[in-house]
Formats: sequence, structure tokens, C-alpha cells
Amino acid sequence: MNTPSPRPPAGAHEPARNPGGWRLRMYTVIFEADTRAGRLFDLVLVALILASATVVVLDSVASVHDRHGALLTALEWFFTVAFTVEYIARLVCVRHPLRYARSAFGIIDLVALLPTYIAVFVPGLHALIDVRLLRLLRLFRILKLGAYVTEFGLLGRALVASRRKILVFMVFVLMVVTIMGTLMYVVEGPENGYTSIPVGVYWAITTMTTVGFGDITPKTDLGRVIASTMMLLGWGTLAVPTGIVSAEFTAQRFGRSPTTRTCHECLSEGHLPSARFCRDCGAPLPPWQHDATLADPSTPGQRPG
Amino acid sequence: MNTPSPRPPAGAHEPARNPGGWRLRMYTVIFEADTRAGRLFDLVLVALILASATVVVLDSVASVHDRHGALLTALEWFFTVAFTVEYIARLVCVRHPLRYARSAFGIIDLVALLPTYIAVFVPGLHALIDVRLLRLLRLFRILKLGAYVTEFGLLGRALVASRRKILVFMVFVLMVVTIMGTLMYVVEGPENGYTSIPVGVYWAITTMTTVGFGDITPKTDLGRVIASTMMLLGWGTLAVPTGIVSAEFTAQRFGRSPTTRTCHECLSEGHLPSARFCRDCGAPLPPWQHDATLADPSTPGQRPG
Amino acid sequence: MNTPSPRPPAGAHEPARNPGGWRLRMYTVIFEADTRAGRLFDLVLVALILASATVVVLDSVASVHDRHGALLTALEWFFTVAFTVEYIARLVCVRHPLRYARSAFGIIDLVALLPTYIAVFVPGLHALIDVRLLRLLRLFRILKLGAYVTEFGLLGRALVASRRKILVFMVFVLMVVTIMGTLMYVVEGPENGYTSIPVGVYWAITTMTTVGFGDITPKTDLGRVIASTMMLLGWGTLAVPTGIVSAEFTAQRFGRSPTTRTCHECLSEGHLPSARFCRDCGAPLPPWQHDATLADPSTPGQRPG
Amino acid sequence: MNTPSPRPPAGAHEPARNPGGWRLRMYTVIFEADTRAGRLFDLVLVALILASATVVVLDSVASVHDRHGALLTALEWFFTVAFTVEYIARLVCVRHPLRYARSAFGIIDLVALLPTYIAVFVPGLHALIDVRLLRLLRLFRILKLGAYVTEFGLLGRALVASRRKILVFMVFVLMVVTIMGTLMYVVEGPENGYTSIPVGVYWAITTMTTVGFGDITPKTDLGRVIASTMMLLGWGTLAVPTGIVSAEFTAQRFGRSPTTRTCHECLSEGHLPSARFCRDCGAPLPPWQHDATLADPSTPGQRPG
Repeated sequence: MNTPSPRPPAGAHEPARNPGGWRLRMYTVIFEADTRAGRLFDLVLVALILASATVVVLDSVASVHDRHGALLTALEWFFTVAFTVEYIARLVCVRHPLRYARSAFGIIDLVALLPTYIAVFVPGLHALIDVRLLRLLRLFRILKLGAYVTEFGLLGRALVASRRKILVFMVFVLMVVTIMGTLMYVVEGPENGYTSIPVGVYWAITTMTTVGFGDITPKTDLGRVIASTMMLLGWGTLAVPTGIVSAEFTAQRFGRSPTTRTCHECLSEGHLPSARFCRDCGAPLPPWQHDATLADPSTPGQRPG
Repeated sequence: MNTPSPRPPAGAHEPARNPGGWRLRMYTVIFEADTRAGRLFDLVLVALILASATVVVLDSVASVHDRHGALLTALEWFFTVAFTVEYIARLVCVRHPLRYARSAFGIIDLVALLPTYIAVFVPGLHALIDVRLLRLLRLFRILKLGAYVTEFGLLGRALVASRRKILVFMVFVLMVVTIMGTLMYVVEGPENGYTSIPVGVYWAITTMTTVGFGDITPKTDLGRVIASTMMLLGWGTLAVPTGIVSAEFTAQRFGRSPTTRTCHECLSEGHLPSARFCRDCGAPLPPWQHDATLADPSTPGQRPG
Repeated sequence: MNTPSPRPPAGAHEPARNPGGWRLRMYTVIFEADTRAGRLFDLVLVALILASATVVVLDSVASVHDRHGALLTALEWFFTVAFTVEYIARLVCVRHPLRYARSAFGIIDLVALLPTYIAVFVPGLHALIDVRLLRLLRLFRILKLGAYVTEFGLLGRALVASRRKILVFMVFVLMVVTIMGTLMYVVEGPENGYTSIPVGVYWAITTMTTVGFGDITPKTDLGRVIASTMMLLGWGTLAVPTGIVSAEFTAQRFGRSPTTRTCHECLSEGHLPSARFCRDCGAPLPPWQHDATLADPSTPGQRPG
Repeated sequence: MNTPSPRPPAGAHEPARNPGGWRLRMYTVIFEADTRAGRLFDLVLVALILASATVVVLDSVASVHDRHGALLTALEWFFTVAFTVEYIARLVCVRHPLRYARSAFGIIDLVALLPTYIAVFVPGLHALIDVRLLRLLRLFRILKLGAYVTEFGLLGRALVASRRKILVFMVFVLMVVTIMGTLMYVVEGPENGYTSIPVGVYWAITTMTTVGFGDITPKTDLGRVIASTMMLLGWGTLAVPTGIVSAEFTAQRFGRSPTTRTCHECLSEGHLPSARFCRDCGAPLPPWQHDATLADPSTPGQRPG
């Protein structure tokens, strides 16, 4: 979510070339939040998004639906039309409509429109309109929350950096739950609710994640022995993601990611932020300021105010 | 809870100006715990609070209520009247009654009185008297536990400092559970217990927090696939708060909050509390005493024996 | 369990003064594990303990009980008599019988005997014989596991050191679950299973610890809103113990507990284990060996006795 | 799974001595992945493994089984025969067939064959064919994932290093759950679902691991008090593995495993991996290569094959 996109979103949102005055104005209002009009537009947009989500939620409550069903449907169509118009407007006033349409936000904006239209043919799906909430991700840009998410950007970057570690972990977990699920299917069998291997896997996941719904539970002694082992080991296994994340936050908390201090001479890593010379070959290290420029925005939360 | 209030509570508890002797005595007894009378008063107060809470708890047990209902009601009224008198007394003997009434403790003291009176009109609410337990927060002051909570004060301050990180996290979680809840509502539908989107969201929260009551569970294959994904990802997601808190405690455990020691000359961070000069540019650092007043009493637990 | 006993266990196990040869031999066999006889005795003891526990477990299984009930009862009495003899023997051959009887192990040894005898009068209690497993704590001494538990000794010491932090946390948690339990009792009421405040508190604990049995669950909308909030906040709350423990292990992992390196000149703390001079005043620090000697006796709780 | 095999697996995979050209070719194709043929063979193998697992999973779904049962059985036999041929081929073309047969992979390969054959005599067991997924561990070798798992190799080594800590922890947990399970069996009794001590232990495990299925729950007041205590303490207890793992990852994150760098002269610890001289006495440290060689083969379980 926070990985730097190859092409800065700004890049996707340039005004149309030699725009007619109205297109430039439109661009400024829709895509920028620095003019009063632009800011107003964004706030109205957020209000509409929240309102439309609320409408869908209320509509799903039987009692409310029975009383105000017609009104809610009307509102839903109103919001959908409004968002459709907005989407077209965005396409019109950017220089590279396709590039916008292919950008993360462009896709979200489009997907957020479809449910209502689809619901015409496939009733019931319209509840999916809640996907519109994803549009709130805009809030981060609107409210200039850039700094707010930088820390998570760091976390995201760190997780991307250790994606191999996570990949291996996930493969391992999936392998384990599949085998355990199969085992329980064989041991407990359909008569105890383990009607198929997929169900067994589903059970294994609820168990290893310590969710433990209890809709399916082992009844036989052997099954309970296996389950007990799974729980004890599973806990240890799931300590791994916590460990990875904790380590990242600890590294951030200490205001340093040692891997960013590499000696240009001998490529040795892990130099303390305060080090000025390479422990290894004595070559001078890139100055702390360099690190600071990275670390500074990365720890806004750490410097209250 | 631990954020330093703009106005020190002490400030809210000055004796009345030119008080009649009785008001000053009263103030000393009620608000201070350094005289024998004051200490006695506080201990009696704690006893009364615990007793009144116990009464309410016992009264809620059907068997006890049937046998001793009348007695318990009488006791409850006795305690309520006692606390009312105490509250009025507090108002009388402080210099700024309004300021006390608006202080955290003043509000708690008042709220702790209302349930009994309200219960006269709205029966059943009187159980809320347990809110009186909040008054036990006084214990920290009474038993001079200030030092005891300083560590949590540090934690609290750190969490406040990273409030934006937490805000972003909560917004993200709420967005996810709403969308997942909607998805399950669409996939599983009312016939499987997902009677409305709010119910779906409630289920999504029980699942992502790994509580997993199991009162509502997916029955369809697709629903179980989605649930399984949620559990695996949810675990990773909820590793985040643990990570944040662990990082804070680790920072405390290492006896330093690096971000608070910044060199004013070169802005380098992460200096040890005991350091007196910048590791980097040799400029003198803000003295340890400054840090000590905050950190020193804050780490009694760190100096065993 | 980890509180240091005022008197070193060794003190409780001195042979009787001017003992007859047989008493000294007996002491050597029973209390020491360095002679072949002593070692043998200890191993037999462990075997008997495990055997008697197994007997009780088997006896609790209806099918086994019906078939071998008589045999199991006989065995149980055999073990109990054997342990009784052993207990008396211990009393006989130590110099201070009372001191042994009052030591942690003495009490465990006694308690481990009672269930069978009590069961004569109060049937059913004999299952409690499993408390004999506590006697296995002896294993640590027998198998010279001292070193094995040193790390936990460090953890234990750290937790003891931050007992106030933990106390405050527990008080806070108990206050919260009581109030939340009361709230749910008022909101949901007996008709939804919250038959009394204690039951509500029990539910609040299952929820905040993310155990979530699901035997009692909120049915009303308001109840579910409150529960959802509890779960989200509860998770954060329970991240605290994890954070404390993680911080301790991290400190250990980094091979240093900064508080043990204090400059005798200026009392500055947090010196690295490898540091030889005070960062602050340049005075020589106590050598690293000093730290090692600290680590050893630091495990009073781990040597029960 | 991570225990270092006495003999490096590589040793188990030498081509037959003075092999006929066909045997050497076969060896290159089957055991190596550097030739086009070898790579192709491996990919086909992975495809077959996944396919056969899928077949078993599908076969377990009643609806699918009824429609395509015969086909799936046929496919299963096809895969089994194919894997049998492959297994024989492996035996034929390695220099030390027995050594291969005794290697971790050899055993997995064999075990993966048995279920189908066994199922002829003991129907139902054939679902265990999913154990074939274990063969996917080969993926790590095939896709040259060595580097991917090194981090877990470090973790694994660290956990092996603290195996005593973990052993003590497990013994402690098992002791606690046994005693608590017994206690609940005595307090709640069969009429509340605690039909035997083993069942009580099973319940205690589900509770302490916060899985909380809810298939068995305390009904009596005393039972609920005990359960509540267990949950609160259990949470703290299970914070231990998380703490251990978090500490390991934090140590890795900070780019050093201090305990493995000890100065042979002054026994000081905590040297950075990149350090070449003792911070303390200036003596040269064992070279980083030494550390590397430790890190690499120390993860045999991690790079199967």
C-alpha cells in the first residue's frame, strides 16, 4: 500500500496540455487541494463517500430497509450518478486520461462506481458499494497526511525488503495447515464436521491463528491430541510475524536502520548512526546528515509537535 | 489517562482563600493525605468505594438479591448519600469549586453519584454504580503511587507522540473490517447469520482480533476462503500494535528514549541519556538532569534492588 | 513462585547435627544427588511421581476406570504410602525438620500427600493428586538444570524488578473488565446470558484476552458495538505484557542489562558490557566478569527449596 | 526438522562411481537443476506434486467425489506410479543409495508413496497423500531459494541455541495445563463436559493459547473464576515465545548476533559481525568468514537437498 509507485501520482495528474481555461480550472479544483475551491471540492467528496457508505450500511438493516427502502435506493443512485460525473470529469481534465485510469486511484474510482450498475442485473451486489470507502485513501493526500503515513511507508518498505522472509513463512504456514487439515479430515472424518479436506484446512487456519470459532472442533481423543499440539506449536509459529514487525518498529524507534550505513570502501554494513569511520577499513562514512535526511521525516511521530 | 493535564491537579485543589479554620481543616483532611486524619479519611473512602461496588455486584446475583435485596438496596442508598455529602464537602472547601468540578477527578466523583438517583426513574441502571471503581484511580495519589505509573506515563507519552501512527492504523483497520464485513454479508447473507452489514462488521472485528466467539461463522465455501484469508492477514495486521508497544518498552528498557536527546548543533539523534557531549560534533548536549527529571523516577523497575 | 526465600534453601537441607551414621547416609541419599545411591533415589522418585500422575489421569477416563478401577486405586494407595514414608524420612534426617517443612519443597511434598487421604472423606478430590507434578520442579535440581533456568532467572528478576509496572497494569485491567462486565450486564441483561455482573466480568475477560469461548455473546446491537470497541482496545491493552516480556528478552539477547553497569564514580548507567571506562567521567568501570558473577545468583526463584 | 544432519546432504547426492553415461545423465537430470533437462524435470516434478495434492483434496469433497470419483482414483494411481518410478530412478543413479534413502528427502520421498498402497488395505488413509506437499521443500533448492531462507536459518540457529530456554518453557507449560486441567475436571466434572482429565488438559490448552473453541466451557462459578485467572496469567505466559522470537528478529534487524562474537582473549561479548578487533583488548577476533561459514551450513533444514 505504501510502496513508492514507479511513477509519482503527481505525474499522473498533470493538467491537460494547452488546456482551455475551464479545463485548467477544473483540474485545479478536482486534483489539487490548495485553492479554496479545491479544498471545498475534496471535503464535499469525502462527505459524499461517507454518506453513500452509510446509506448502504443502513439499507442492509432489514428494519430500516422496510421503512425507508425507496429513499435509500434513490440516494444510492444519486451518489452513483454524482461519482460517475466526477469520474468523467477527472478523465476529461487530466493530460493523460489513460495514465490516470490505470493509476491506483483511477482504478479505485472506477470500481467504486460499478456495484450499483451491476446490481441492476445481479441484485444484492449493490452492498459492495462499500468498496467506496477505499476512496477515502484520498484523505491522506487531501489532509496532507503524507507525513502521517511515512512511518508506515518505512514499515511497508521494510516488509517489502523482507518479502522473501514473509514469502517463505507464508509458504511454510500454508503447507502446514494443508497437511494438518488433511490429517484431521482423516482422523475425525465427516461425522465430526470435517466434511472435506478444504474444511479441515479452514479449521486448521482458525486454530493456528488462535481465532478458534468452535464451529468445528475435534471430538475424538486422537483428534484432540493433534489439535493440542497444533495450538502449542501454532502459537510459536505465529509469533514470527509479530517478531518481524516488532523488530522493524524497534529499529525505527531507535531512530536508525543500520543497513543504511554502508561503507563505500568495503561495503561493510551495520555501522552505528554515530560512527564516522568504517569499523572495518577505516574509510570515512557518509556523514550523519545523510542519514538524518532519511531519518528525519521518518520519525515525525517520535518528535511530538 | 497518563497525559499530563495542562493544569496540575494540585492547582485544582488549593484550599479556599482566607478560609475559616474549619474549611482549611476540612481541606487538609479531604484533599491531602499527609496528616493522620487525611490518611484515615482516604482509607475509609477507598473502603467505602470497594464496599459499594461489592454491594452492586452481589445485588446482581439473583440468589443473593432474592435473599438480601432490601438490605443491599439500603446499603446502596447509604453509600450514595455518603458520597454525595463527600462531593458537596469537596466543593465547599476548595478555593475554585468550578475548577475542581471540571477536573478529571471532579467529573468522576459526580458521575459516580448519578446511577442511584437515575435508577429511581430508570430501574436497572443502578448497576452502573460500578463506575465508582474509577474513583479508585485516587489510589495512585493516595498511596503515593506516582512513581508506579510514571513508566506508563512514559508509555502514554510515547503513544501520544505516535498518535498519528495509531490514528492511521485505526482508520485502516476500520476501513478493512467494514469492507470485509460487507463482503461477508454479500457472500454469506442473512440465512447464515450475517443479518446486516453492521453484524458483518462485528464478525469481522471478532475475527481480526482473533477473539472468534463463533456465534456467527461462515458456512459457504467462498465465505470460508475469505475468512481464512482474513485470519492470516489479520494476524499480521494486529501484530502492529504489539510491535509499537514492544518497541516503546524496549526503548525504555534500554534506559533511553533516543529521540529526546538531539544535538542542537548537528541534529544527530540517539544519544545515550548519560552522554554529555554530541558523539558527532562534540557540541554539549542538553544536560542529563533535564532528561533525569523525566526519566529518572520513571525507571525504578529498571534498577532491581 | 519466584520470590526469593529469606533463607537459602541449602540452609534448609543440612544433615542432622552429630548424626548417627544411618541418618547422615539417609540425608546423602535423599537430599543429595552426587552419590550413585542419591542419584538413583532421585530418578526412582521422578519415575514414581510420573507413574502416580499417570494413574490418576487414567483413573479419570470412565472406560479405563470401569475396567481397572480397583487396580488403579490400589496403585494410588501404594504411591501415597510410599511418598508418606519418604516425607517422614526427609523430616527425620534433616537438621531443622520445621525449616524443611516450611520450605517451598516441604510444603509441596506435604500437599502432594493429602488428596488421597482427604478423598477418603470427600470422594472425587483424589484427582487433585496431580498436584504431585509440582514435585517435578525437583527435576531442575536433580538434573542440574540450574544453568537451564538462568535465562528465566534473569527474566524473573526483571519481572520482579518491574513488579510495580505489572501491578499497576493488573489493577487497571481488573478495573476495566469489572466496569465493562457491568456495562454488558446492564445492556444485554440476563435474557442474553449475562445473568449477573460476575458472569459479565468473566465474559469481559474471555473477550479482552482474545480467548472468546463464545458460550456467552452479545445479542443486542448496542452490546455488539461495546464488544467491538472492547476487542479493538483490548488487543492494544494486552499488547502491554507482550511488550514488557519482549523488551526483557531483547535486552538479554543483546547481552546486556544496562542497569547492571553503573559507574561507581558518577553513578551514570547504561554502559555497554564491552565498555571499560565511564563515558561520563572517565572512571574505570567494574570489569565484565563482575557482570557474569551477577548473572548467576540472580535466579533465587528458579532454585525452589 | 532443522537438526543439522551429521553428513552434508550434498554428500548424499554424488553420481554413481564410474557411472555408465546413462546413469550420469540421469543423475544430472534428476538431482541437479543447472541443465535445461534438469530444470525441466524439476518443474514437471513440482507440477505433478501439486496436481496429485489437488486430486486428493478434490476427491475429499463429496459432491466432486460422486461425480468424478473414478477419474480421480485413476489419476491418483497414475501419480503414485510416476513417483514410484522416480524414487527407484533416484536410488539407481546415486552413488550411495542407502545414504540417499536415509536422508531427510529420501524418507519424505518414500513416505509420500505409501498412502496409496496402504489405502488398498486400509481404505480412507489415501487422503494422507497430501504429505506429498512436504516434497515441495525441494522448491527451495530448485528455485535457488537458499538465500531466501538464510534469515530463517539464523532464526533456527538462534532457537536451537536457546533450546534449553524453550525446553524449560514447554515443561513448565505442560505442567501448568495438566494441573489446571485436573483442577477443572474436579471442579466442573463430567456433567459440564469435563469428562476426564485428558479432556480437561485439552481445554486448558485451548484456553491458555487463547484459541478458545468454546466446545467445552466452565459452567460453575468457581470454574469460571479459575478460568478467568488462567486466561489472564496464560496471556502473560504465552507472551514468552513471542518475546523470544521478537528478540531474535530485533537482533538480526540490528545486523548482529552478539553472542556469536566472543573475544578469545578477554571473553568480552557483543562484538559486531563486521568488527575485526576486540573492542576491549585489541586482540584479533575470529574472522567474519568464520561467522559466515557458521551461518551457511547451519541451516541444513532450510536448504533441503
